[in-house]
Amino acid sequence: MNVGIIGMGRIGKVHARNIAAFVPEMRIKAVADPFMDEQTIAFAKQSGIPVVTKETEVIFKDPEIEAVIICSSTDTHSRYIMEAAKAGKHIFCEKPIDYDLAKVREAIQTAEEAGVKLQIGFCRRFDHNHRAVYEMVRQGKVGDVNIIRISSRDPEPPPVSYVKVSGGIFYDMMIHDFDMSRFLAGSEVTEVYAAGSVLVDPAIGDAGDVDTAVVTLKFENGIIGVIDNSRKAVYGYDQRLEVFGSAGCALNQNDIPNTAELFAADGTYRETTYKIMWDRYTEAFISEMRAFAEAVINDAEPPVTGIDGLYPVLMAAAATKSLKEGRPVKISEVE
Amino acid sequence: MNVGIIGMGRIGKVHARNIAAFVPEMRIKAVADPFMDEQTIAFAKQSGIPVVTKETEVIFKDPEIEAVIICSSTDTHSRYIMEAAKAGKHIFCEKPIDYDLAKVREAIQTAEEAGVKLQIGFCRRFDHNHRAVYEMVRQGKVGDVNIIRISSRDPEPPPVSYVKVSGGIFYDMMIHDFDMSRFLAGSEVTEVYAAGSVLVDPAIGDAGDVDTAVVTLKFENGIIGVIDNSRKAVYGYDQRLEVFGSAGCALNQNDIPNTAELFAADGTYRETTYKIMWDRYTEAFISEMRAFAEAVINDAEPPVTGIDGLYPVLMAAAATKSLKEGRPVKISEVE
Amino acid sequence: MNVGIIGMGRIGKVHARNIAAFVPEMRIKAVADPFMDEQTIAFAKQSGIPVVTKETEVIFKDPEIEAVIICSSTDTHSRYIMEAAKAGKHIFCEKPIDYDLAKVREAIQTAEEAGVKLQIGFCRRFDHNHRAVYEMVRQGKVGDVNIIRISSRDPEPPPVSYVKVSGGIFYDMMIHDFDMSRFLAGSEVTEVYAAGSVLVDPAIGDAGDVDTAVVTLKFENGIIGVIDNSRKAVYGYDQRLEVFGSAGCALNQNDIPNTAELFAADGTYRETTYKIMWDRYTEAFISEMRAFAEAVINDAEPPVTGIDGLYPVLMAAAATKSLKEGRPVKISEVE
Amino acid sequence: MNVGIIGMGRIGKVHARNIAAFVPEMRIKAVADPFMDEQTIAFAKQSGIPVVTKETEVIFKDPEIEAVIICSSTDTHSRYIMEAAKAGKHIFCEKPIDYDLAKVREAIQTAEEAGVKLQIGFCRRFDHNHRAVYEMVRQGKVGDVNIIRISSRDPEPPPVSYVKVSGGIFYDMMIHDFDMSRFLAGSEVTEVYAAGSVLVDPAIGDAGDVDTAVVTLKFENGIIGVIDNSRKAVYGYDQRLEVFGSAGCALNQNDIPNTAELFAADGTYRETTYKIMWDRYTEAFISEMRAFAEAVINDAEPPVTGIDGLYPVLMAAAATKSLKEGRPVKISEVE
Repeated sequence: MNVGIIGMGRIGKVHARNIAAFVPEMRIKAVADPFMDEQTIAFAKQSGIPVVTKETEVIFKDPEIEAVIICSSTDTHSRYIMEAAKAGKHIFCEKPIDYDLAKVREAIQTAEEAGVKLQIGFCRRFDHNHRAVYEMVRQGKVGDVNIIRISSRDPEPPPVSYVKVSGGIFYDMMIHDFDMSRFLAGSEVTEVYAAGSVLVDPAIGDAGDVDTAVVTLKFENGIIGVIDNSRKAVYGYDQRLEVFGSAGCALNQNDIPNTAELFAADGTYRETTYKIMWDRYTEAFISEMRAFAEAVINDAEPPVTGIDGLYPVLMAAAATKSLKEGRPVKISEVE
Repeated sequence: MNVGIIGMGRIGKVHARNIAAFVPEMRIKAVADPFMDEQTIAFAKQSGIPVVTKETEVIFKDPEIEAVIICSSTDTHSRYIMEAAKAGKHIFCEKPIDYDLAKVREAIQTAEEAGVKLQIGFCRRFDHNHRAVYEMVRQGKVGDVNIIRISSRDPEPPPVSYVKVSGGIFYDMMIHDFDMSRFLAGSEVTEVYAAGSVLVDPAIGDAGDVDTAVVTLKFENGIIGVIDNSRKAVYGYDQRLEVFGSAGCALNQNDIPNTAELFAADGTYRETTYKIMWDRYTEAFISEMRAFAEAVINDAEPPVTGIDGLYPVLMAAAATKSLKEGRPVKISEVE
Repeated sequence: MNVGIIGMGRIGKVHARNIAAFVPEMRIKAVADPFMDEQTIAFAKQSGIPVVTKETEVIFKDPEIEAVIICSSTDTHSRYIMEAAKAGKHIFCEKPIDYDLAKVREAIQTAEEAGVKLQIGFCRRFDHNHRAVYEMVRQGKVGDVNIIRISSRDPEPPPVSYVKVSGGIFYDMMIHDFDMSRFLAGSEVTEVYAAGSVLVDPAIGDAGDVDTAVVTLKFENGIIGVIDNSRKAVYGYDQRLEVFGSAGCALNQNDIPNTAELFAADGTYRETTYKIMWDRYTEAFISEMRAFAEAVINDAEPPVTGIDGLYPVLMAAAATKSLKEGRPVKISEVE
Repeated sequence: MNVGIIGMGRIGKVHARNIAAFVPEMRIKAVADPFMDEQTIAFAKQSGIPVVTKETEVIFKDPEIEAVIICSSTDTHSRYIMEAAKAGKHIFCEKPIDYDLAKVREAIQTAEEAGVKLQIGFCRRFDHNHRAVYEMVRQGKVGDVNIIRISSRDPEPPPVSYVKVSGGIFYDMMIHDFDMSRFLAGSEVTEVYAAGSVLVDPAIGDAGDVDTAVVTLKFENGIIGVIDNSRKAVYGYDQRLEVFGSAGCALNQNDIPNTAELFAADGTYRETTYKIMWDRYTEAFISEMRAFAEAVINDAEPPVTGIDGLYPVLMAAAATKSLKEGRPVKISEVE
């Protein structure tokens, strides 16, 4: 199965490398990036990718290419989804589809009408730790779910210049956790309440965003969810979740680079978690791509659909509105 | 230092036993309970308590008794505090002082004017695990606090008959966590948002309460707090807290009866936490009483003051109102 | 049930305090110590012990006293056991009975002939962590036992003056682990091989002892045991054991004072274990005394018999010989 | 740097795959195996390996090939080392070099005289958990080492047919732990005492071997080491080690596939360790090959030298003799 990658920034290169090494079902025929630079051209050559271009059209028009992997900037996602769909290509698109709900819906509908697969890059669903909690829930080991808790904290805030165009913490960061909460709950959120503070860097506040946020979610079936985000955890990439229910509580801890401990006179020490996202989610990026390949090959529904791309955006919109207005906001208010 | 205990129900007996065995600074001179029964009389005799009476007056009038320990039902707390204060006795009173804020204030003021010590029985401040997190925070090991998370879940719901008169989950159960959040934050809460569901037992809903609740707290200094409560955790008494800040994250786990693990073919197993409150907080009850004795002996401020008894009631009032009205409620609205 | 305590040093006082607070089945009628000092007399008075004497005879002759608790120096154990037995008293005796095997046998035989209970103070059998591993083994959760590993390290070596008269590390320290290995194995040791080094303090070597030792045990049923001891673990009282078998592996960790952890920028920290034996084995001392009381009251075999007191001494003798001669030594060689 | 692989069994293929994906410094020019089959030829083609042959000569004679990776059966190791050395190729050779000490010495000497690098495949030195303990030791965090403990247990015994030709548990299994003990101790072993039992499968005993063994090591500098091996741990690949010293104790735990836990009514569960060696040591195989590439490129001493290949064989010889003769055996006896 030949694939083309659109957008060869960081995440595009990660997918390219993973496909080459770990996704035998796929062969990268072409990579396209309007800002294609020398370094990327060299990377592509070294990786044995035959076609390297600045024109995305080259990919859409290549009849040998069955699927495209969209890794360009968010504002181009919905457009490329629609072009790819019209060209009859299956689509893997990085999250989020768009911040504009109308565009999200149009993209999803176009893909549906074209009968192509559309998978959204919520990679954390494929993380070994999160997946293990999900499996416990799915197997009924926690019984009926009552409470979902997610802590998601980044080691470092992004540059303030990025924060300004990011859509804010709910669209840029918590969107992963919104997706995860739906995934774990098996139910939709009806109402969102967001509390936020600027405690990490005043410049983030000046840019109109918060850097610390706690969001409460009410689900249709009565489950209560709570997510906390911080832009800066000095000890690394903090990613833990917990699902409490009538039969038990499934929860995970952070990955650490090794299991060694030191019993010393003044305490017991072990290493802290990863400080870099790519180290933390290495396997998740590979797993999601294999899952996409399988969905295409077996003509099955992808594990993260276009609708799964829509709902977290709705939740981010509701959280943003809630923070601004200081009150709980129903999802129906932002639809 | 002679003390008298008012109210010889479960908690009264626990304090009596602890004082006898572990608080050498105190001697129980008298116990009073209007519903004094044979079993309690036998217990008191066995424990070498000289005076056993149905009349609380006996304690208030005994010039040898320096301090009273109020373990009666909540509705009598404020009255006994005032009577004890007027009699010049130092006071240890179980939480909460009252659900009626006017009565709480009057009780506190009366004790203040009488110049007696007043300590409120928020025992969890003395728990070894919670105390250890608190010490890390106080020593600056987490830096500036950003987020406080508390999970507090009981092994079994109380009888519905009790739920009906308990004042609800926020007054009866989360009040401990409200206290803990203030203790950890070193700041006051300004606004509360409560989400609640009936997921454990419909009869609790019929009684007008919820059994599952998540409350978001905004503190004066920007800290965001979040507390979750459930009336029923099948795996036992779940009591964990986490303080996240600019320099790190302090958190604790549940106590377990032993450290043994079994590596078996189908997984690794260890015991779950305690199923009974008295097993879980054994040491905390002792420590709080010793701290009270020390405060009296050294004429120092007790570690949990009357004001510490007032604020959690305010928070419970705000949470109750928030749940009813489906919106965040400022503390100033309920004062 | 009235008891008398012989020997009111550290361990005598611990038992006295525990009995008063936690063993309602027992009442301490008398304490005897030839070196009875003012402080001990004061302690006894405060504890409400009626008879305080320098004459052990007072205890043996008191018809009200049913049982004696022998906490005197090791060289007097066997003599007091025999005197107590002849006086018809049940006996709890601190370990070891004696270093001289003939005396051990005579003491045991005398108690047997007198028909009195004899329990030896191997308190670790009653420790919650060790007991939990033992229960897993007993319940068949590890299947047939293959390997037993015990690590037992003290926070500080005893004074060299004590080392000189202690009988050496195998009699003084590893004897607890010898007992534990038999307890866990449910089988007798046939051969012992000891390796030892002086790595902690050369003065211990000058005193003719080692401070670091690893002993291999061969059991009748093919189980292999291995025990390591060190006189000095800077991080505290290190007491871990592991039983590996055909169905799994049961193991425990050290107790720590609390479960709090700190995720900091340079690592994750938690407290280390206890530095003082009495803090570590608090509950074990209580449990063994309650077990003794129950054995007497129910006329049942004590959980640690005289024979259980004999075998570890045999193992210590074999280990001492093995270390000296640099070869494995059969238990039959030292019997 | 072009390399050739000799022997394309399981381990040969693992190295080939790892080099292709993760060792950019190396390019596999040729693979040779006298028993080259269709499947291996297909594998080689798919991996883009230009030369596939049954003749090892092809590799030795190819002037473009700088280094050979010897993955053939143990009895051919020393011969291929000498041939490669004479052909001026650097050598990575799987452990052990040989069971015959004369051959081991000759192979090492030949490589030395030829001035080529020789690295032995003791992959566990590169394992992230073991490496982390090693680094703690090397950084002085445990102070002077006193005791080294290694537990190494396999999920399943090899076929009895293999056991018969394997040289026995000390050559075939514990040899890794002998290497690790030297690596951690930074000192040589002078004496070995082995205890062994047949507890897993009587057929192993019939084949003249034991399946359960505990070996005590005495090091030159007074350190005492102890290693336990079992051929069958039902819970998976058990690989833990512990280094105890004057300043602390460094130890590691087994890797587990994820960090998820379930708090259930009857206990807390998590997954057990890996059941397959290749899953457990994935990264170690990659790391050792990168280290070899670096040593060649930088003309530096390889991290595991020929001498490191010799000593574990000496220790295995001493352990085998010790088990047979039931006494400690000095290394000097088997040299």
